[in-house]
Parts: sequence; C-alpha cells; structure tokens
Amino acid sequence: MVFEPMVEMEIPELHDFLEQEFPQVVDELRIEALSVEAITVRLKVGDHHLRPGGTLGGPAMFMLADVSAYCIVLSRIGWRPLVVTTNAGIDFLRKPAAGRDLLCVASILKMGRELVVVEAKLFSEGQDAAVARANLTYHIPPEDRPQEVILYLNKQGAENAGN
Amino acid sequence: MVFEPMVEMEIPELHDFLEQEFPQVVDELRIEALSVEAITVRLKVGDHHLRPGGTLGGPAMFMLADVSAYCIVLSRIGWRPLVVTTNAGIDFLRKPAAGRDLLCVASILKMGRELVVVEAKLFSEGQDAAVARANLTYHIPPEDRPQEVILYLNKQGAENAGN
Amino acid sequence: MVFEPMVEMEIPELHDFLEQEFPQVVDELRIEALSVEAITVRLKVGDHHLRPGGTLGGPAMFMLADVSAYCIVLSRIGWRPLVVTTNAGIDFLRKPAAGRDLLCVASILKMGRELVVVEAKLFSEGQDAAVARANLTYHIPPEDRPQEVILYLNKQGAENAGN
Amino acid sequence: MVFEPMVEMEIPELHDFLEQEFPQVVDELRIEALSVEAITVRLKVGDHHLRPGGTLGGPAMFMLADVSAYCIVLSRIGWRPLVVTTNAGIDFLRKPAAGRDLLCVASILKMGRELVVVEAKLFSEGQDAAVARANLTYHIPPEDRPQEVILYLNKQGAENAGN
Repeated sequence: MVFEPMVEMEIPELHDFLEQEFPQVVDELRIEALSVEAITVRLKVGDHHLRPGGTLGGPAMFMLADVSAYCIVLSRIGWRPLVVTTNAGIDFLRKPAAGRDLLCVASILKMGRELVVVEAKLFSEGQDAAVARANLTYHIPPEDRPQEVILYLNKQGAENAGN
Repeated sequence: MVFEPMVEMEIPELHDFLEQEFPQVVDELRIEALSVEAITVRLKVGDHHLRPGGTLGGPAMFMLADVSAYCIVLSRIGWRPLVVTTNAGIDFLRKPAAGRDLLCVASILKMGRELVVVEAKLFSEGQDAAVARANLTYHIPPEDRPQEVILYLNKQGAENAGN
Repeated sequence: MVFEPMVEMEIPELHDFLEQEFPQVVDELRIEALSVEAITVRLKVGDHHLRPGGTLGGPAMFMLADVSAYCIVLSRIGWRPLVVTTNAGIDFLRKPAAGRDLLCVASILKMGRELVVVEAKLFSEGQDAAVARANLTYHIPPEDRPQEVILYLNKQGAENAGN
Repeated sequence: MVFEPMVEMEIPELHDFLEQEFPQVVDELRIEALSVEAITVRLKVGDHHLRPGGTLGGPAMFMLADVSAYCIVLSRIGWRPLVVTTNAGIDFLRKPAAGRDLLCVASILKMGRELVVVEAKLFSEGQDAAVARANLTYHIPPEDRPQEVILYLNKQGAENAGN
C-alpha cells in the first residue's frame, strides 16, 4: 500500500487562519488554488505596497512568499500555531509589472518530522517570467508535533530520513 | 595616501529619503546611529506588527533588515533611486521579547562598483542575543553609477577586485 | 520578431572548459544533457566523496551545483573566464542514496547584463525526490561583457530590466 | 547561578574526528584556535585547490566554512555522527589573495535543542577584508539528542525558546 499525503486544511480553513493570525494583511491576500502539490496565493497590489515610481517593494514580496509557504505547510499538517520560519532566502529577479497583482506559487520540497522546506516563485499576473524566487524552512516544535503528526509523517518513510 | 570611505548622506537626509520612498513605514522607523562602519535602526514595535500571542512576524523583521541595509548603502553612495535588493537571506534565531522595540545593526561587507553586500543583526532592545541575522545584496545599475561614484569606488582599489 | 536565446557553447566545448578550469574534478563529472532551458550534469560518486557510513558530503553537492550552474551560464554567453559566483544558497533535503551517482538539473531564472541567477536540484540517480536544492548568482564583470554580449542581452528586452 | 556553555571537545579530539570523518581533506585543515565563542580553522591552500590563474574556487571555500562550522558545533555538544547541515548560504566577496592560506572564523549564533545556526567569515591570511561570509544551519536528530544534551541545552533557558 502506498501512502498518499493529504490536504488537512482546505482553502476556507486557511482563510480563517489568515484572518486570525494575519489580520493586517488578510484583506490583501486570497488563496486561489490548493492541492497536495502546490498552493497559489494572490497579493492584491494596492498603493500602500508601492514605492514612488510604482515599484512593489521587497518586503511585500517576502511577506507574500512567507504567508504562502506557511499556508501550504499548515494545509498538510493542520493548524499548528507554534510552527515558525527558521530560515529564508530570496532572489529578486525582475521588476514586477506595474498595476498587476502578484501571484505566488509554493510547493513543499521536503516534509520532515521537524523541518519543512518550501520553494516559492512570484509572478506578476499574466506574465511567464518569475519576479522572485524564494526558499523557506519551517520548524515544527516538539510541543506541536502530536502523536498523529508523527504517525502521519512516519508513513512517508525512508525518503524523509535525516530530519 | 590612504583613502577613507565617507558618509555621503547623514541621518536627517536618510530620514528624508525614508519619508519619500517608504511613507507607509517611516513613522515606525528611526535611525539611531550612523558611521562609516555601521548603522543602527529602531523599529517601534506596534500592535499591527504582532501576531496573536504577541510575536513579531518574520516579514516585519525582513523589512527592518532591508530598510537598514538600504540606508547604509545610500549613506555611502548618496541617494540612488535605482539601487535594488537582488538577494537576501535571513535566519530567525529566537522569538523577539514581547513589548520591546527591535534594533537592527547593519554594516557593509563589500562595497563594489556594481554590488554591495551588507550583513545585519536584529536585537530586542536591551538583550544581547540576536533574534535574527540577515545578509542582503544590492545592485547599483549602470544608470545610477555616475562618474563620481566610479571614481569614489576606484579609490578603494584592489581589495574590491572581482565585482 | 521574437528573440530566441541560443546555446553558445555545446557539451564538447563545455567539457573542454571543465578540463582546463577544473582539472581536479573533470573526471568525475559528465554533462548528460544541455538545452537553452536546462543542463543535466552527473557526478560519478566515488569513495573519496563519501564520509564513513557512505554518506555523500555537503561540499561535494555544493561543488556539483556550482559547476552545473556555471556551465549553463557559459553555454549561453560563451567562455568568459572572469565570471564568478557571488552568492549561493543550498538546502540539504535528504540523504543521497548509497552507491548511486548524483544528477544535477540546473536552469537559468534570470539572464541579466551583469547578474545571472540559476536554480539547481540534485537527485540520486533513479529517484524522484531531490536530495538538495540550490540557488546561485553569477556576476559578469564589465571586462567580460563585450559588445556582442550586450547586444545579445539587449534583445531580451524589458523583461530583464533592473540588472 | 549562571550557566556557562562549555567546550566538550578540544582541538585534539576535533582533529581525531576530522581524520576519521574527512580523511580526504584532513591534511589540508588545521584548527588554530577554539573557545566557547569561536573557532579558527586554516585551509593550507595547495595547487589542487586552485583554478588556472591561481584563484581559489568557491567549493573549496564552502568546504572550509562547512567543516569549521561543524567543528564548533561538535565542540559544544560532543561527537554526534548524525548531525547534518540542513541549510547554508554564502556570499563570495573578494578574490582570495594568491599564495596565501585561508582562515575561517566561525561562531555559534544560536544553540537550540534541534537546530544550531553558525556564522563564518573567511580571510586570506594577513588581510582584514573577508573574502567570503557564510551562514550554516545544523540539525541534531532525535537519535543524537541524548538526555545529557537535553539537560545541557535546557540550562540555556528561555533565550533559546522557539527551536
């Protein structure tokens, strides 16, 4: 029998989570698609994101990558408030197109018992070339690693050996 | 004769720059100290930075590191609106202390003709152990590299060979 | 008229380059595939790569990612000896499988006039889950940016604005 | 009573460890200094590290940073063969000076129960400006986290909350 990863939290639950945990930004964000492979999150670009000249700043892009990655992690392990970002890297590749929303596509590279590694790409809506690329690592602390999560992760077997 | 790097923009000019370029966050930021070696920038932590439970989020820390690094770059080369962050990495080390401002100390590791590399550490005010560590690279595009900057940088000589 | 990027150096020329520039490791490396989109490079894993217990060390994986990325950059701009890695990040995801070669698949995320950003994934031969993920940035110094490269890059147009 | 971190493995023990775990490179490496704050490791630069033109390659610098960081981690928690690098980032800042050894100074930024974050700087001997800067994260797997390590780390208390 092959074990299949499952989505533990669907889009409406993730929106509830964002509303509670990120009230300042929830109105700007919308999860557009979610599967076990990937999540797509939209940032509705508003004037307050823009620097003079109409450029979207790096911190807004970092926020979008972090929230998207966090959501796909939670979609797989359920609402765990103690999960934290431990490390992130981002390459800013191109200037985002003026007047367009930003879309982030994130997927899980490694789902470990303690560490989850996510990669994300950001696109100006309607364009093929990514404006940024990010990698983010999340840590699931022991207090937030109840038996069922351990069992769930154990089923993923040898491939996740190491961490 | 030994060439000494100089501060080209002082704290009041950098505050003017922040007011113009980062109007959304300028009220939360204050440059506390500036020398050719380092800059110290305070983030006045407010409720809107906090997630439930009182934790300061990663994106706010990223923003503080990016703005601080950007300011020390400009302090050395003057106001160049086309300078952009090309790459950043951040390790989140500890939970910031509740109810305390965050201080960022940033310094230039490499001042090149085209690339500037900055390192930054973030501290909860009054505490010794850093809550985060970041590295950030900025690119000075050719249009923003007028002759005097070239001359200025040339004086730094062989140590900056490479980029 | 749409401009198409071209391969400027094919596999035999890249092997010549490796032989000249990386004589210590050329015998362990073989470029398996090359297109404008991606390169695949094999590391023939030998005993001297292994730590006791049969694990392939991080530095060998870093070397494979760096050489692969460097080769795809050169395949697009031609042999430029002054191109240097300026920044790299790597996530080690899983233990490589014992007794298997390592394959690196690298592709260009951004081909700029001065900076090239590459992403790479490493796999144990025959396995689907990546053992590592890397991002690498290369700098093309002005001396190595002859007119034809500028013209070539100019044709890529607005999408590469910024750097 | 204030808890003081201690050195659990001294230089001779770390050299024994290198000899057993890194037989291919042990002859090139020498630990020059070790305290609870920092480690200094020398890479005796030989012809086989150099690329034509006499440049030391990025992978050799990565190896030096990784081994140095690994050694300071082990110096604090003792010989734990399952500790692995999970993430690393490196900025290459300047060309190393020709014909000089490379020195790496590494220190621990965060000593957690499961994750250890190290920063490192590399210098050409006798020069002040770093040739590279690196950050590295190590994971201590549960099997390698015996009771005495837990107790040891527990004493470090609230500062290490989070991971």
